[in-house]
Amino acid sequence: MPDRGAYDSETVFRILDEGLICHVGFSVDGQPYVIPTGFARVEDRLYIHGSAASRMLRTLAEGIQVCVTVTLLDGLVLARSAFHHSMNYRSVVMLGRATLVSDPAEKIKALEAFTDHIVHGRWNDIRLPTESELKATDVLVLPLAEVSAKIRKGPPKDDAEDYELPIWAGVVPLTITPEAPIADPRLNSGLEPPWYAKKYSR
Amino acid sequence: MPDRGAYDSETVFRILDEGLICHVGFSVDGQPYVIPTGFARVEDRLYIHGSAASRMLRTLAEGIQVCVTVTLLDGLVLARSAFHHSMNYRSVVMLGRATLVSDPAEKIKALEAFTDHIVHGRWNDIRLPTESELKATDVLVLPLAEVSAKIRKGPPKDDAEDYELPIWAGVVPLTITPEAPIADPRLNSGLEPPWYAKKYSR
Repeated sequence: MPDRGAYDSETVFRILDEGLICHVGFSVDGQPYVIPTGFARVEDRLYIHGSAASRMLRTLAEGIQVCVTVTLLDGLVLARSAFHHSMNYRSVVMLGRATLVSDPAEKIKALEAFTDHIVHGRWNDIRLPTESELKATDVLVLPLAEVSAKIRKGPPKDDAEDYELPIWAGVVPLTITPEAPIADPRLNSGLEPPWYAKKYSR
Repeated sequence: MPDRGAYDSETVFRILDEGLICHVGFSVDGQPYVIPTGFARVEDRLYIHGSAASRMLRTLAEGIQVCVTVTLLDGLVLARSAFHHSMNYRSVVMLGRATLVSDPAEKIKALEAFTDHIVHGRWNDIRLPTESELKATDVLVLPLAEVSAKIRKGPPKDDAEDYELPIWAGVVPLTITPEAPIADPRLNSGLEPPWYAKKYSR
């Protein structure tokens, strides 16, 4: 993977692996669409998936240009001036052509990656896809070839003369916090939440 | 605002007002781009802004078609089967043409909305924009005309026969949690963080 922008592959991979959703952009007849969806990274490939019946998947599978963006919000940057207010974030923008995964082995590997991307360890505990479920699911792959990352971190950057103003400035850090798992109301009695649900972390 | 999709304006507005970033999609020469940025809603108009020098702002200001999407992630949905794993989320997709705000009064109102959208009450405490800062900032407006919301909530929906499996299923709720504010290392001594930073909530 060529390293575009200011960051290396390792930084890009870390942002992608921490993200839970991506925003997929594509155009149909000149109208752009931006759709949130799950994803997974395997080596230098990004996978997205969805119902084989969805418009997005059908459109993308034709091999049109896409842009997939993953953004992590890290904090609110409160400067002394309105102008320098900002947010701390890390984002990755990926350009290219997504294509349909047809190899069954690659497809099942990608589905495993989707599940374990959301909850590491979950794949081993669940009922795996049937033939008809596999048929109903389209998986698309985007090679990570044209990728750039953007990162803003740290305190506000104010104009020199504003540092003397009697205005508090700093950062309010934001984190995504898991709460206690909520059992399915139809859960069979006696089943305890697994460790990855009780102590979820990324 | 016409109510597209399953949800009314009030639901759409609530999602927008809770979101901190949007993903703006636009196409240049057939290549879509999806860029994360701040935003604010005022009545039935969405505002985005940025440096007057940025490619995105310059491109959008030409009046091309855009898609702006705001997504809130609410939880991880752990089903009994791989196939029914999902996420709980609320999203709003807005289509239309963004245009440059030229009226100075509307522009300053939008800038106030950006700041107060991130941290309610902040605008009253800070050094307001100068003429040259106003010139360096482009504000775009997108009328909320073609809007749809999508919401997934609640427990997993498994296949009938899977409910008997000895597999824990449920939801891991996710929330964005503010941490204690971090003062700018260059902060003048004696300045305490304001209430909206100490007890930040949305």
